[in-house]
Amino acid sequence: MQAPATGAVPIGIVVCSDRAASGVYEDKGGPAITAYLGEVLATPWHPLLAIVRDERDLIAAMIESLADLRGCPLILTTGGTGPAPRDVTPEATMDACDRLLPGFGELMRQASLKDVPTAILSRQVAGIRKSSLVINLPGKPASIRTCLDAVFPAIPYCIDLIGGPRLDTHDERCKAFRPAA
Amino acid sequence: MQAPATGAVPIGIVVCSDRAASGVYEDKGGPAITAYLGEVLATPWHPLLAIVRDERDLIAAMIESLADLRGCPLILTTGGTGPAPRDVTPEATMDACDRLLPGFGELMRQASLKDVPTAILSRQVAGIRKSSLVINLPGKPASIRTCLDAVFPAIPYCIDLIGGPRLDTHDERCKAFRPAA
Amino acid sequence: MQAPATGAVPIGIVVCSDRAASGVYEDKGGPAITAYLGEVLATPWHPLLAIVRDERDLIAAMIESLADLRGCPLILTTGGTGPAPRDVTPEATMDACDRLLPGFGELMRQASLKDVPTAILSRQVAGIRKSSLVINLPGKPASIRTCLDAVFPAIPYCIDLIGGPRLDTHDERCKAFRPAA
Repeated sequence: MQAPATGAVPIGIVVCSDRAASGVYEDKGGPAITAYLGEVLATPWHPLLAIVRDERDLIAAMIESLADLRGCPLILTTGGTGPAPRDVTPEATMDACDRLLPGFGELMRQASLKDVPTAILSRQVAGIRKSSLVINLPGKPASIRTCLDAVFPAIPYCIDLIGGPRLDTHDERCKAFRPAA
Repeated sequence: MQAPATGAVPIGIVVCSDRAASGVYEDKGGPAITAYLGEVLATPWHPLLAIVRDERDLIAAMIESLADLRGCPLILTTGGTGPAPRDVTPEATMDACDRLLPGFGELMRQASLKDVPTAILSRQVAGIRKSSLVINLPGKPASIRTCLDAVFPAIPYCIDLIGGPRLDTHDERCKAFRPAA
Repeated sequence: MQAPATGAVPIGIVVCSDRAASGVYEDKGGPAITAYLGEVLATPWHPLLAIVRDERDLIAAMIESLADLRGCPLILTTGGTGPAPRDVTPEATMDACDRLLPGFGELMRQASLKDVPTAILSRQVAGIRKSSLVINLPGKPASIRTCLDAVFPAIPYCIDLIGGPRLDTHDERCKAFRPAA
């Protein structure tokens, strides 16, 4: 992991992939997420990137570590959400989270359905671990973008509600919504 | 709780709010639900209104009491469905229910998304406890109305199926649907 | 059950109905599913049809048997997904499955909502048992068709991913989607 920039908000990115972890495949999900956050976030932030094998315990432990020890208010996973036997990211996320937010998965699948009918095969979930919001994303860069475009406007307010730092976005790229008090 | 009107169907309304329960905040969710039911229901009914703190055990106990001891075929909660630490209404509802009806939460979030992108933060659920249908609603009156408009046409038939009393609606306000036998 | 045609892919069809199992009601769900598969599938297949009472253990055992002993890569149930006390097919399916695919239920309810507002009362789920995909369908032939039209394009690729046989469809009737490798 990179050393944190002073004062910048740490955001966890967990690449779940046997092939990327063993080095036989160059991961494209992590860079796609980093690029997206760079476009959208106005608040200074820095990525904490981890690449782990498709093992439920390892993925859960990495999420827990990024939340509890690194203080990430937002943790995004990529990969491992399909129906194949090695796809265990949703289970690992449920293990690590105190509570689930079903609306994220529903909306990300619905948005992805406009691109491919196999979007219903994604088992992606989102949940909260203490003051961290954890969201499963697909592995493909184009699908990551579709999913983040759908849910990002709700992310800053969610992080407010769970006691995390204020995140501001570039309005022309993504208009974060906060209800009037 | 009010004394029941003879023969009228009792409908439970559970306001989940620390602030309303301690009297520092005048609850607006309960009156919004009561007003909505008054517009829509043709069958005589009366509200059993309870205001409880955001405590999982208290909310579950209140739902159970309204179902089992007061015979409410419909119990509507308001508040406590977001991601904040004190939002525990969905957990309390799952504790009290035998079975869940995921279609209610899906449709209420989808309808609310037309108003605000943060609708995906609602963790609202619906479920069945014996012969009672329990539905979580948001806290804000405008959001309550959006959610009830979305799901109310299915409520009377659901109550038929679980063995509750027949509820009729004012067709011009809400057209309850019952499939031809 | 019928004797399997040599080489044809066995597809399980489980009719969940007290009345059909006791013979007082002629089941229409099973024939509707068989007719649908006949229209859509280009790969040789044969149905393994079972009619069982609305008992959670019996339905789960039948799903498990069709998956593990009969090698069905696809098992479709019909009936028992509503809120009535004897509707236990989703629970039986969850018992039999290792993992759930929430996108199927979400999309089938959404598609059915275009026909009837009571579509939200369906608790239908889909899941995976080892190399078998299990999907709950409604009991009524028209609703079965609506649901299968919505999700069938994703079924062949799902079965690829869980290690089942390749299923091809008649493209003009149903265009199965497989992402470019």
